[in-house]
Amino acid sequence: MGPDPAVAAVRLAVRGTLREIDAGDLVLVACSGGADSLALAGALAFEAARSGHRAGGVTVDHGLQEGSAERAAGVVRAMARLGLEPAEAVRVTVGTSGGPEAAARDARYAALADAAARHRATVVLLGHTRDDQAETVLLGLARGSGARSLAGMAGTAGRYRRPLLDLDRDLVRRACLAMGLDPWEDPHNDDPAFTRSRIRRNVLPLLEKELGPGVAAALARTARMLRDDADALDAWAERALREAEEAGGAGAVLAVGVLAGLPRAVRTRLLRRAAIAAGSPPGTLAAVHVDAVDALVTAWRGQSHVDLPGRVRAWRRYEKLLFGPSESSDK
Amino acid sequence: MGPDPAVAAVRLAVRGTLREIDAGDLVLVACSGGADSLALAGALAFEAARSGHRAGGVTVDHGLQEGSAERAAGVVRAMARLGLEPAEAVRVTVGTSGGPEAAARDARYAALADAAARHRATVVLLGHTRDDQAETVLLGLARGSGARSLAGMAGTAGRYRRPLLDLDRDLVRRACLAMGLDPWEDPHNDDPAFTRSRIRRNVLPLLEKELGPGVAAALARTARMLRDDADALDAWAERALREAEEAGGAGAVLAVGVLAGLPRAVRTRLLRRAAIAAGSPPGTLAAVHVDAVDALVTAWRGQSHVDLPGRVRAWRRYEKLLFGPSESSDK
Repeated sequence: MGPDPAVAAVRLAVRGTLREIDAGDLVLVACSGGADSLALAGALAFEAARSGHRAGGVTVDHGLQEGSAERAAGVVRAMARLGLEPAEAVRVTVGTSGGPEAAARDARYAALADAAARHRATVVLLGHTRDDQAETVLLGLARGSGARSLAGMAGTAGRYRRPLLDLDRDLVRRACLAMGLDPWEDPHNDDPAFTRSRIRRNVLPLLEKELGPGVAAALARTARMLRDDADALDAWAERALREAEEAGGAGAVLAVGVLAGLPRAVRTRLLRRAAIAAGSPPGTLAAVHVDAVDALVTAWRGQSHVDLPGRVRAWRRYEKLLFGPSESSDK
Repeated sequence: MGPDPAVAAVRLAVRGTLREIDAGDLVLVACSGGADSLALAGALAFEAARSGHRAGGVTVDHGLQEGSAERAAGVVRAMARLGLEPAEAVRVTVGTSGGPEAAARDARYAALADAAARHRATVVLLGHTRDDQAETVLLGLARGSGARSLAGMAGTAGRYRRPLLDLDRDLVRRACLAMGLDPWEDPHNDDPAFTRSRIRRNVLPLLEKELGPGVAAALARTARMLRDDADALDAWAERALREAEEAGGAGAVLAVGVLAGLPRAVRTRLLRRAAIAAGSPPGTLAAVHVDAVDALVTAWRGQSHVDLPGRVRAWRRYEKLLFGPSESSDK
């Protein structure tokens, strides 16, 4: 008799990821102790032993909840029982920048990057499932931002891999139990103070009810297509920016003729890049700012300049569009 | 005292649309008798009298409900009272192709196009609001299709204009009542048999509750950005298809070298176009088909061919990708 079908599916996904990695390399799994990442850890331990990879695990202790250190120690023991080596907990200090969820995420990824470097791991596996992807798309939708934010999480991003991104959370959880592992669920995941928890508990189930089953899969499919779109448009914008700079005669001086010939989707991406290169902070540079700069190109009626976050200014002089510090356009 | 603020907002939106149309031209409004299109008709009558446009109205009687002819006659009387000239009802026969909603829509747009041609109208105004746009985006999301289907409805499409696309439905309805007009609500709009009705009644209110107010606006903003993206990528795919054909030496023969250098988002759009040009019906040609053709380019391990809907086949011969009738690749 073969393994439980859910276990087989999770292992198959991990096997696909390992196939891209040289045998002998160290693969780390980031494991919170939750069912998804615990199933991933179990599958990694199983598959790595067969494929000739070394496999280790890291759990991040955010130090935000009572007893988090003990719990992290428990996850380390579970990883060690699976045969993962190293199996370690890393304690991080969570800041406040960008809100509690973003600050915890930043601290976590910094710790994972550090662990990967210390242990010379080739890749770090993350346990995000298709349901996490669907939630991410809905979070992006609620913000009303463009393709990039609807594109969700990448299956491959730098040293990170998300082998479970095409699998149902339900299936992954069944696999965890069938592996005989004992998951711990972070109460934060069900805390309605977090938008993501409300999406998980209330929004996705209603969408499944009203729009039919398969909504999570549809959202994940959409994310993948929009990621391809955003990659293509970013590449085009990057190329067009270089052309506009060459025709403009200097960095931060863009030829309006080049800009005006571009589709709006490319031109706005290009202008956003140019503003960021001139020092405007990506986090506060909004679509309304970019649209105002765009109007200097497409609807110029003698506007003097547009002030952008970070004391950056964009202005037009005849057939050139210039970016510089706020004072620099005074004529 | 000026007009009610809601009335002023609707009139302002219509004024913006009329500004793009030559004075003296005839502008038709498509009016179901519902609050949105009735408010639009009222604002058109008011603004056209000031801007020197001629204004008429058409209501489409789908003949699907008991008493629809009498109701259409009532809408004609209401339009005539507003001073619209012509004010007419057009009876259509709704087919079955594509399901009841799509068939009714096809019949309606055919009748509007015909009325515009008969009366030599420059444009036809449609009463879709931001809420309709948000519903359309959610319908696209549920299908899991790409940017084009998430891009919703265009503000300008051929002879059609949607002046209310940036306005709340609530505001437009308040304007209708403040104009002293008596709307008739189609019971279909609330019939839970239709996915769009369930989105309107159940999904959007929950999203507003869980994700915060402004979800409809965020969805509409997303739609506008994704429309720009889809336009840019379609233009790129069109250009790249011509290049691949030129390098391939004939129509329906594409140079693999050109295809392989493209981003996936552009290549899949290009391959879809090529398959449709070869006779594959757009309605049944799905992403899985296009992905299989894409694999002939990017993951060719000697696959012989890919069969597509409409008895179209794609196959690879050395550095060329060919499309033709199903029999034609037999070697």
